[in-house]
Amino acid sequence: MFPLHFLQRAAAALSLPVVARLSGAMLYVVGLGLGDEKDITVNGLEAVKKCERVYLEAYTSILGVPKERLEAIYGREVVVADREFVEQGIDGMLNEALTMDVAFLVVGDAFAATTHSDLVLRAKGLGCKVKHIYNASIMNAIAGCGLQLYRFGQAVSVVFFTETWRPDSFYDRIKENAQLGLHTLLLLDIRVKEPSVEALCRGKKEYEPPRFMSCATCARQMMEVEETRGEKVYGPDSMCVAVARMGQEDELIKTCTLKEMCNIDMGGPLHSMVLVGETHPLENDMIEMHRAAPHDFLPADQVPSQYLSDL
Amino acid sequence: MFPLHFLQRAAAALSLPVVARLSGAMLYVVGLGLGDEKDITVNGLEAVKKCERVYLEAYTSILGVPKERLEAIYGREVVVADREFVEQGIDGMLNEALTMDVAFLVVGDAFAATTHSDLVLRAKGLGCKVKHIYNASIMNAIAGCGLQLYRFGQAVSVVFFTETWRPDSFYDRIKENAQLGLHTLLLLDIRVKEPSVEALCRGKKEYEPPRFMSCATCARQMMEVEETRGEKVYGPDSMCVAVARMGQEDELIKTCTLKEMCNIDMGGPLHSMVLVGETHPLENDMIEMHRAAPHDFLPADQVPSQYLSDL
Repeated sequence: MFPLHFLQRAAAALSLPVVARLSGAMLYVVGLGLGDEKDITVNGLEAVKKCERVYLEAYTSILGVPKERLEAIYGREVVVADREFVEQGIDGMLNEALTMDVAFLVVGDAFAATTHSDLVLRAKGLGCKVKHIYNASIMNAIAGCGLQLYRFGQAVSVVFFTETWRPDSFYDRIKENAQLGLHTLLLLDIRVKEPSVEALCRGKKEYEPPRFMSCATCARQMMEVEETRGEKVYGPDSMCVAVARMGQEDELIKTCTLKEMCNIDMGGPLHSMVLVGETHPLENDMIEMHRAAPHDFLPADQVPSQYLSDL
Repeated sequence: MFPLHFLQRAAAALSLPVVARLSGAMLYVVGLGLGDEKDITVNGLEAVKKCERVYLEAYTSILGVPKERLEAIYGREVVVADREFVEQGIDGMLNEALTMDVAFLVVGDAFAATTHSDLVLRAKGLGCKVKHIYNASIMNAIAGCGLQLYRFGQAVSVVFFTETWRPDSFYDRIKENAQLGLHTLLLLDIRVKEPSVEALCRGKKEYEPPRFMSCATCARQMMEVEETRGEKVYGPDSMCVAVARMGQEDELIKTCTLKEMCNIDMGGPLHSMVLVGETHPLENDMIEMHRAAPHDFLPADQVPSQYLSDL
């Protein structure tokens, strides 16, 4: 509507919200869905193609494909926005979004993570126009395992136990759900771009390799907490569903007991898990289709690695 | 892989699962997302374009656009599969899916409704190969209002009260959520292709016009049930968020009290509502962005119609 150089000069003279309105510029917050570069919606793709800057949020989830495959279908460079970027470098992006179309891409859907509410609030505060393009996230795609979404209680996060920190608040949330007969979706820890302890000491920017929690590790941590707390919220025979790479070509869904889950081999990330509550017969039929077979497990004497490696 | 006429003859001679494997045919169960014909994913669109038959499930939700707009981008005729079709005519579709690619389209995502689990089980029983293409549904897109998904308890359905039938089981579910401080998503009644009482008596196929519940009607029914049950699960001052046409161009989000909600004007269908639980400050900031203004309400003396008309 107005030439860019005019807008940039105007930005110095006028209030930012006025500039944003004049420019017609938009910040598109676009969910990419769960699979590959083609799980973006057609509306999402059309929006991204007209953006001058494209950022990919890459620390609350991971892409199932290399970012070059995104760039190929967008015809645009994709800048990876890691944790540091989202927490510190976001203002530059928001300023851009005052005078040009900018896309902020999120694997799954944007509003699964609190960070993105914060982004929207800051954007609106600056006067950016924001448009959200919805997509599937694990929070609804989990129904693909055959359990009904309206039978789920609150979702919980399970983080890696360390020698000194074994947070078990998920146990209380599961208990609340279980008392109502509801299923619990367990979202498993993702550690991407974590500074190494050594690097922190030296003030250097060095990062640990990416680490992802497996269903087997989650099940082991759950068993430990039940042993410690002893409130019989669940037990070795509790029915669980493990899902891996949901929505991707090699999506895997397996149903087994919690004890069996401690040795299940679900392959590469991302994994999620459901602790099953009371079931409708139709739900039983669905999850039984995915009953784990002997070859789905690691040998009984083999302890699964705590961390899944990157793709 | 094999010519179709061979497969059709083979179907008579061989078991159906064998035919399905030979043909390489697939039943694609495709979520359309929440907005217009372009909220399908790129993968979904590519799958539909190669299908010989395309069915649109049209009774658990409604499209935001006429089906002709789907047909235009698919280059395919779209057959509307209404309640009658899904409950009675589904076998014909599944038999087709043994020898040719068939798409079954669902507004939002497929697994929000129990019907579609049933479809998948029947398809697998017949030997069909089934591929699910995920998309956004109201169950995750509700986070677009600014409330965090992991703070939601079980979702509930609210159906139209009649003179003789005023089902209030949603009250118990809300109570369970409220006691845990959780938000409740209320999915509001949709009545599409309901046979008219007159038609039922005469054995004719005549249907009532489509009817959709508004947030105002939901709020009025909730107030009535609280008055009857009196357990103070919520009250006139309870904070609510109304959403209308989520994911569509004219998406509308409004925050107000339950009492105010009884007179809110959210426009055409579909509506959904959230009864807000305990909130994080970031959630408060988000829902306050959508605080309803005086012009969002009908005049105090005007009783909103119980039914929203069709688009």
